[in-house]
Amino acid sequence: MSILKNDLLLRTLRGQATERPPVWMMRQAGRYLPDYMKLKEKYSFFERCRIPELATEITVQPVEQVGVDAAIIFSDILVVPQAMGMEVQMVEGKGPLLPDPIKHYNDLGKLHVPDVEEELGYVFDALRLTKKTLDGRVPLIGFAGAPFTLLCYMVQGKGSKTFDEAKVFCYTQPDAAHRLLQMITDTTIAYLKGQVRAGADVVQIFDSWGGLLGPEDFENISLRYIRQIVSALKEEVLTIIFAKGAWHSLEGMAATGAHGLGIDWCIKPAMARRLAGDAVTLQGNFDPAKLLAPIPAIREEAAAMLEAFEGHHHIANLGHGILPSTPVDHARAFVDTVKEYKRRQ
Amino acid sequence: MSILKNDLLLRTLRGQATERPPVWMMRQAGRYLPDYMKLKEKYSFFERCRIPELATEITVQPVEQVGVDAAIIFSDILVVPQAMGMEVQMVEGKGPLLPDPIKHYNDLGKLHVPDVEEELGYVFDALRLTKKTLDGRVPLIGFAGAPFTLLCYMVQGKGSKTFDEAKVFCYTQPDAAHRLLQMITDTTIAYLKGQVRAGADVVQIFDSWGGLLGPEDFENISLRYIRQIVSALKEEVLTIIFAKGAWHSLEGMAATGAHGLGIDWCIKPAMARRLAGDAVTLQGNFDPAKLLAPIPAIREEAAAMLEAFEGHHHIANLGHGILPSTPVDHARAFVDTVKEYKRRQ
Repeated sequence: MSILKNDLLLRTLRGQATERPPVWMMRQAGRYLPDYMKLKEKYSFFERCRIPELATEITVQPVEQVGVDAAIIFSDILVVPQAMGMEVQMVEGKGPLLPDPIKHYNDLGKLHVPDVEEELGYVFDALRLTKKTLDGRVPLIGFAGAPFTLLCYMVQGKGSKTFDEAKVFCYTQPDAAHRLLQMITDTTIAYLKGQVRAGADVVQIFDSWGGLLGPEDFENISLRYIRQIVSALKEEVLTIIFAKGAWHSLEGMAATGAHGLGIDWCIKPAMARRLAGDAVTLQGNFDPAKLLAPIPAIREEAAAMLEAFEGHHHIANLGHGILPSTPVDHARAFVDTVKEYKRRQ
Repeated sequence: MSILKNDLLLRTLRGQATERPPVWMMRQAGRYLPDYMKLKEKYSFFERCRIPELATEITVQPVEQVGVDAAIIFSDILVVPQAMGMEVQMVEGKGPLLPDPIKHYNDLGKLHVPDVEEELGYVFDALRLTKKTLDGRVPLIGFAGAPFTLLCYMVQGKGSKTFDEAKVFCYTQPDAAHRLLQMITDTTIAYLKGQVRAGADVVQIFDSWGGLLGPEDFENISLRYIRQIVSALKEEVLTIIFAKGAWHSLEGMAATGAHGLGIDWCIKPAMARRLAGDAVTLQGNFDPAKLLAPIPAIREEAAAMLEAFEGHHHIANLGHGILPSTPVDHARAFVDTVKEYKRRQ
């Protein structure tokens, strides 16, 4: 393994003081980059995930073109349900479709906890090739969906604003829900350990829909499984939890021992710090829609965000994925503003 | 005007101690009631809003069939953009469609601040007829969308998870956004005053999408217009603000002088009370998906919610609209649990 030339992200997650915050952007690989759009015309979504050369090219693009301090492997959280035996389609312009969703306990019989090397080895291949291609320029982030978020798709069968069917499944069939969540958890632990073996320096758990649950339900249905995952991983790799909207449980998330917690723009950094405590690194929290504003406004707002985090224990990022309509030079203005930031001594 | 036989809601909003919390449910009129579904087969959405006899029948149904302590007029927040000159279609199973959305400052030329008696008189007729039909059984709630939420639909042109186009419009064309917000605000003030003249005892402002904004943007783009509306109304009628997800601004919302603030299930009542202060009445916050759980679980969770609010300065409600799939006897179990609640002395 080559020595990392830029290890800002790792030092920040370890709680060390750094000269400036590291910066990366959720969904930075793909979506808004013209070179990605060209690949998108030629290859289907899952081809882009499954062919290591493509996944690597897409993963490295924002490092070279936008100058971020970390790469995150190009993949999708729904590769896990796929590996567990569910059909997952990506319908252009409509999002994911799982045509045969889980509705009852008996439906769990069609799922299995897979051998991850066999079913998800292509992700590990992509990580290994990316690691080699990065050649120590920046750290590589692996990721997985939180069990509750994956359950949302596996039960609802498609995207939703509120995932009511998935929530009702949890509230009315708790035995089935918890069995499914445990199967996903077991798969995810093996999957993330495989990612670490393949070279991931950091892993992030995305709970995109955890914020749809109240505090008690978030603990019972989501956080208890995230806790298992963090416990199994935190000794061997740096871990970040991003549960969008679940600001109310920052204290509980910090108590998992995760190294970093993502927050969105709907909570002020000082409030998040108060809730999460001083030990954990916070990641966020720029409103991605603001990257569509004129560049001077982006620079001003990004600088204000950095000030609000006070420059330490902070990874500069968006509060959600970058929008496909973001001009590349706007993304670059955000990244450059962080790079120019000088922490007050 | 006949004397109200049940004025629990009004006394609670005035901050008076009551024998138990009043209870109603957002979207209680329509959606899940079989008698509503029969009307839905025969009349289009806007017929149901525009024919006073139909709107009244739908408004009174949950009072008679579920036993709620207040009626809320059957209508839609999008009647305001319609009255301002926009075409609004309700596409069955897909939600609202505004085929000619606002994209630029010049598009505002096709809008006007309407004479509400002329353009929205049908709502006032429905309120008057409902008031007469209720005959003092329970108070009648009128409502309007918050200016930002209406802007979301007027710019995006349809529903969305994140209303990015609408937010980008606000961030990149602030002059157009603020002019539009002020036009909506002026219309809404006249509209709600008309509702009060027609008999509304309480008005609620629904900011369904305010929670998509960070705290500063919520203040600049949403709350400042809500504040104008509350200021113009609060001396003549009891007012409730419900800005879903905007927990971070409960203090600012309380400072408007509104009598009540709605909260969703993602914030614990004690935390909401801490943020909002002691003066205001809180309304909420049952997760509507929980009304699909078995009745004993509904009763248990509803009782726990009541305990968490400690029985005073509280209007029992859901944290969002009731789901169309809710069985009527489940809704009734929720209402009955509140009615059986005895506040600890």
